[in-house]
Amino acid sequence: MKIVIAPDSFKGSASARDLCAAIARGIRSVMPKAEIVELPLADGGEGIMDNLVYATRGSRMEAVVSDPLGRSITAHYGVLGDGSTAVIEMAQASGLPLLSPEERNPLLATTRGTGELIKHALDRGYRKFIVGLGGSATNDGGAGMLQTLGLQLLDAGGRPLAEGGGALAQLARLDAAALDARLAESQFTIACDVTNTLCGPAGASSVFGPQKGATPEMVATLDAGLHRFAEQIQALRGIDVLRMPGGGAAGGMGAGLLGFMNASIRPGIDVVMEASGFAEAVKDADCIITGEGKLDEQTLSGKVAAGVCRAALPLELPVIILCGTRSLSGESLRQLGKVSAFSIVPGPCSLEEAMAQTLDFAEACAAQLFGLLENSF
Amino acid sequence: MKIVIAPDSFKGSASARDLCAAIARGIRSVMPKAEIVELPLADGGEGIMDNLVYATRGSRMEAVVSDPLGRSITAHYGVLGDGSTAVIEMAQASGLPLLSPEERNPLLATTRGTGELIKHALDRGYRKFIVGLGGSATNDGGAGMLQTLGLQLLDAGGRPLAEGGGALAQLARLDAAALDARLAESQFTIACDVTNTLCGPAGASSVFGPQKGATPEMVATLDAGLHRFAEQIQALRGIDVLRMPGGGAAGGMGAGLLGFMNASIRPGIDVVMEASGFAEAVKDADCIITGEGKLDEQTLSGKVAAGVCRAALPLELPVIILCGTRSLSGESLRQLGKVSAFSIVPGPCSLEEAMAQTLDFAEACAAQLFGLLENSF
Repeated sequence: MKIVIAPDSFKGSASARDLCAAIARGIRSVMPKAEIVELPLADGGEGIMDNLVYATRGSRMEAVVSDPLGRSITAHYGVLGDGSTAVIEMAQASGLPLLSPEERNPLLATTRGTGELIKHALDRGYRKFIVGLGGSATNDGGAGMLQTLGLQLLDAGGRPLAEGGGALAQLARLDAAALDARLAESQFTIACDVTNTLCGPAGASSVFGPQKGATPEMVATLDAGLHRFAEQIQALRGIDVLRMPGGGAAGGMGAGLLGFMNASIRPGIDVVMEASGFAEAVKDADCIITGEGKLDEQTLSGKVAAGVCRAALPLELPVIILCGTRSLSGESLRQLGKVSAFSIVPGPCSLEEAMAQTLDFAEACAAQLFGLLENSF
Repeated sequence: MKIVIAPDSFKGSASARDLCAAIARGIRSVMPKAEIVELPLADGGEGIMDNLVYATRGSRMEAVVSDPLGRSITAHYGVLGDGSTAVIEMAQASGLPLLSPEERNPLLATTRGTGELIKHALDRGYRKFIVGLGGSATNDGGAGMLQTLGLQLLDAGGRPLAEGGGALAQLARLDAAALDARLAESQFTIACDVTNTLCGPAGASSVFGPQKGATPEMVATLDAGLHRFAEQIQALRGIDVLRMPGGGAAGGMGAGLLGFMNASIRPGIDVVMEASGFAEAVKDADCIITGEGKLDEQTLSGKVAAGVCRAALPLELPVIILCGTRSLSGESLRQLGKVSAFSIVPGPCSLEEAMAQTLDFAEACAAQLFGLLENSF
C-alpha cells in the first residue's frame, strides 16, 4: 500500500512536517510495510523552505546576511532534491519575527538580506528559484534586495538612496546598468497567496503596513514611495507593476521581483505541490492523507486540503482529511470527492489540550484508521 | 457488505437501541445497499427487554401488575422474535425507579409484580423465560414473586406471611403444594452480572440494601430474613442457595429463582448475545461495530465491547469500537483482535456537549468511517 501524507500545518500547534512524521509513525505501527511518502504542504510562503527541503530530501544552505535593520544574522535557504532549484523564503532574512515589537519600522526595514541570499545562491550556480513571500518586516518594494543585486536607486541629485521603504519617497531614477547579469539567465517562481496590488487602499502599505509598525502618516509616505518606485519601473522596464495582483505581497517585494526578475507569481499550494512532486507521488498511490486545523466551509475554497482533493479527484483516489475540528457536513465532504474526514481528538477535551497534544493525537488517530483499513482489506 | 451493529448504551446519554439506529443511518448515508443488522447489547439486566425485542423484532406485552408497594401499574414484558421466549425484566414491575425516594423501604417492597408478569406469560403459553435482574427496589428474596405463583410462606403459627423482606424474619415453613405446576415445564435463564451471594457482608442486604432505603438496623433484619428463607429452601428443595453466586442479585431474587424455578444464571452479555442471535448474525458479516461511552483499561475485562471482540476473534472479523472517549493505547486494542477504535466527537468539546449530541456525533462518525471503507475498497 502506498500512502501519500500531505497535510497543511495545524496553525499554532504543529508544523506540516512534524504532522507528516507523526502520521507516518501511526501508520507504520499497524502497517510496517506501507510505502509512505511525506509531502508537507503549506498554503503560503511561510514554511515553504522547510517543507520543500523535507519533501524532496533536499538540503539547507547557510549564509550570513543582513536582517531587516542591517544587522548580521545567519539565515538559510533550501536546495531541492533536484540539486538545481534554490528555495528562498524572504522571511528567513527579512521577516517580522526577526525584530522585537519596538524595532518594527517599515520606513527603515530593508529586504537587503533576501537579496544576499539570492546572490549567495547565484554564486553557487543556482539559476532556478522559488521565492516564498509572506511574513515580511519590510515595505520597500524589494528595493533593498534589488540594490544588493546591482540596481541603483538615485535621488534627484543622482545620489544613491538610503535603504528602507521611507527613502523611496526621494526616488528620482533607476539605473540597471550594474544589475547582476545572472538574473537574466535565471527563472523565478514566486509562491504567494496574497493578491493585493502594490498601492492604494488595498495596497501593501495600507493593508499590511500597520502590523509592521506603520502609523497612518507612515502608511501615506510608504504608499507614495512605492508608487514612485512603480513609475520608475514602468519607465525603465516597461512593466506596469502597479496593476499586477500580488505586486503588494511582502511589502511590495512582489512588484520588485515582477519588475526585474524573470518572475511568475503563482499560488503557494500550486508551487509547493509541483516542486515537491505531488502529482508524481500520487499517481500510483492508494490513498492520500491531508489535514488542517479546522475543517469548515472555508476549507472548500481554501488551499491545502481543497488543493489535495482537487488533485485526487480525477485519479479517483481516496482522501483522508485529519483535522482538529470537523465542522463540515458529510454532504459537503462528498462534493470534494472520495473524501472522509476525522477529528484527531480521542474524546471531549479543551482546545488547549488538543493543541498541546496534536502530534500524539494525530499519530494515534492514523494508527486506528489504518488499523481499520488493514483489518478490512 | 454485511455490518452488525452491537453497541452497549453510552451511560447517561444514549441507549444501545438509539445508538444502533444512529450508526445505521450514518452507514446508509454512504452505503445505501449495506446489509445492516442492529443488535443492541446490554451489560446487565436493565434494558434487556427493549434490546432483545428490538434485536429479534419481537413484541412487547402489556399487563397490569403490582408495583413494589402493591399499587397497580401497567408494566411490560417482551416476547422474542422466535415467538416462544418471554423476557421479564424485574425492574419493570419491581424496580427502584418506580418509587419516590421517600417511598423506598425494602422491609415492605415486594416482587409480587414480577411474579404477576411471569404468570401473565405462563397463562399465554410461554414456557421459556429470560429474566433480567437489576435495579430492584426489593429485598424479599423473590418471595413476593413466588407467593404469586403459589408458594406459601408460613409463620410459626401456620399463618401466611405478609409481603416484603421484613416479614421473612417470621418465616417458619414453606409449602410448595400449590406452586404453579407450569413452572416445572418451564425453563428460566437469569441474566445477571451480580455475583454477590445471598447473605452476609457481601450479601444482598448489606451491599444493595442501603441504596434501597435500608438503615443499618433494617439491613440486619433483612439479612436474617433472607438467611431464614434460604434455610427453608434447603429444607424443602435440597438446594443450597446461600452459596450460589448471584443468589444475592436483585434483593435475593436470584436465590428465589434458583430455588424454585428451573433456572440457570449467566452473565447478561452472554444471554443477550445468544438470545439476539449474535453468533448467527456475525457468521457471514464483514464487520462488527460495537461501542461504549468510555473505552479504557476496564473495557478489557468489561462486558459488551470485550464480549463482542471475544466473539469476533476466532472469526477474524474486524471490529470497530465507537466511543465517547478513547483512552486505551493502540497496543492494548490490538490485543483484542482486529480492533480499531474511534471517538465520535468531531473536535474539542466539553463532556456535556458530547453527551448532548451523542447520536448526531455517532451518526456522523459512522458515515465518515464507512465512507472511508467504501472509498478504499
